[in-house]
Amino acid sequence: MTSKPQQAQPIGVFDSGIGGLTVVRALVERLPHENLVYFGDTARVPYGPKSPQVVREYAAQDTDFLVSHQVKMIVVACNTVSSVALEVVQKHSKVPVVGVIVPGARAAVSATKKKRIGVIGTVGTIASNAYANAIRQFDASAEVIGQACPLFVPLAEEGWIDHKATEMIAKEYLFPLKLQKIDTLVLGCTHYPILENVIRTVVDGVTLIDSGKATASDVEQVLEEQHLRNPSRLKGNVQFFVSDIPYRFSEIGERFLGHTLGKVRRAEGFF
Amino acid sequence: MTSKPQQAQPIGVFDSGIGGLTVVRALVERLPHENLVYFGDTARVPYGPKSPQVVREYAAQDTDFLVSHQVKMIVVACNTVSSVALEVVQKHSKVPVVGVIVPGARAAVSATKKKRIGVIGTVGTIASNAYANAIRQFDASAEVIGQACPLFVPLAEEGWIDHKATEMIAKEYLFPLKLQKIDTLVLGCTHYPILENVIRTVVDGVTLIDSGKATASDVEQVLEEQHLRNPSRLKGNVQFFVSDIPYRFSEIGERFLGHTLGKVRRAEGFF
Repeated sequence: MTSKPQQAQPIGVFDSGIGGLTVVRALVERLPHENLVYFGDTARVPYGPKSPQVVREYAAQDTDFLVSHQVKMIVVACNTVSSVALEVVQKHSKVPVVGVIVPGARAAVSATKKKRIGVIGTVGTIASNAYANAIRQFDASAEVIGQACPLFVPLAEEGWIDHKATEMIAKEYLFPLKLQKIDTLVLGCTHYPILENVIRTVVDGVTLIDSGKATASDVEQVLEEQHLRNPSRLKGNVQFFVSDIPYRFSEIGERFLGHTLGKVRRAEGFF
Repeated sequence: MTSKPQQAQPIGVFDSGIGGLTVVRALVERLPHENLVYFGDTARVPYGPKSPQVVREYAAQDTDFLVSHQVKMIVVACNTVSSVALEVVQKHSKVPVVGVIVPGARAAVSATKKKRIGVIGTVGTIASNAYANAIRQFDASAEVIGQACPLFVPLAEEGWIDHKATEMIAKEYLFPLKLQKIDTLVLGCTHYPILENVIRTVVDGVTLIDSGKATASDVEQVLEEQHLRNPSRLKGNVQFFVSDIPYRFSEIGERFLGHTLGKVRRAEGFF
């Protein structure tokens, strides 16, 4: 690894699986000239229900993989890792690290008028209280109500996006948040933007915060501050690596990325 | 490892996670004097959507773990592994190996009158055609209709057992099987017995085959034939090992096992 990151080097992005492709999508839209290296740990997905101890060990391995690809910066496109293992990623790399929690929290605080913010995420993300802690750093008087939605990840992966069962499940998860009269809801899992329409129907009138988009904005700011922007005016390339290429991978991946993935390589050494 | 398995040695049982506890339950009921060692690969669960290549690598590691506990026999309490990696387990052990597919297939062939058998399971199990192949070994004229039900595992793990959304999802998955006029349905995933009531409601009048119970019967037969039954008249003990102790583990585990798990130890070296 070079000690000084170079502008033309790629930005590394990782997630437990393919949910992080929604963050890639936001990054490509905002920073079209940057090169990206994406790693999805599809051989061990999901991280959400697993213990913080195991998530930390996986996060260290994921980081090492990106570091080996000479990335100039790391984006942790996984809310669970950002919640319980961000310091592990920082310790395992010498480049700037951006997680999805702080950008999402900042965007929520900017958006709320009644200072009543809902956060939905995996069991791990909600149990960590990471969003509540980050939101209160920006505004100590904000009320934060968390709700784990464990069935949302499999529903998104299955593509049951407009299904009545999904709406029924969404109503059950989100009803307590409606009762608490939130005006802003953080989609605290990179899978959830896929279900945005259903969620919007259920919590009508509430501002939805897509952490991925907020994160892309933070990434841009860090690149600017640290003079790391790629000066190239060419369209950047995106390299995809996964620890497993499972059934229906391309089909599911395209749904998250918004277009075809192109070449996907299997990363070795993850089990 | 001793070259000749001894009667007092435990039976090893493994699964991708905790679904295999329904098989443990069936084994304890049928063979109360046997000692069991259970391993659940909860750090990498689920196996169902992952590629056969990755499932085979995991199965080899799971087998090595049980072999290191001097088991006299191995029960593969995971339909996905039994479908795509049974020969890996056989190659990595020198003891008798029983999977869940053949016992389930035999029980289905015994039960069907119209020779129209439905099989539900993970994407991996259904894609492998393992049940269809096994059923046709017993009865070449049987018609087998497979259906992957990927949302059933997360619904069972979440405990949404009697939920309306579960019924709606079950109706969608099982409707094509009803149309095909099956009279027998194999629950081809160790998680599914947890959802038996909902499934029974949806496919009223169809005989449900619980592979776990059928497997316990086959295990008994192998023990008899190979003179491996534990002669002890004391209640056997069950040791539980998992590769991760995740959120809500005991609560979920109890649902599958039917009673409290007692001590659960974390197995090292799985990532």
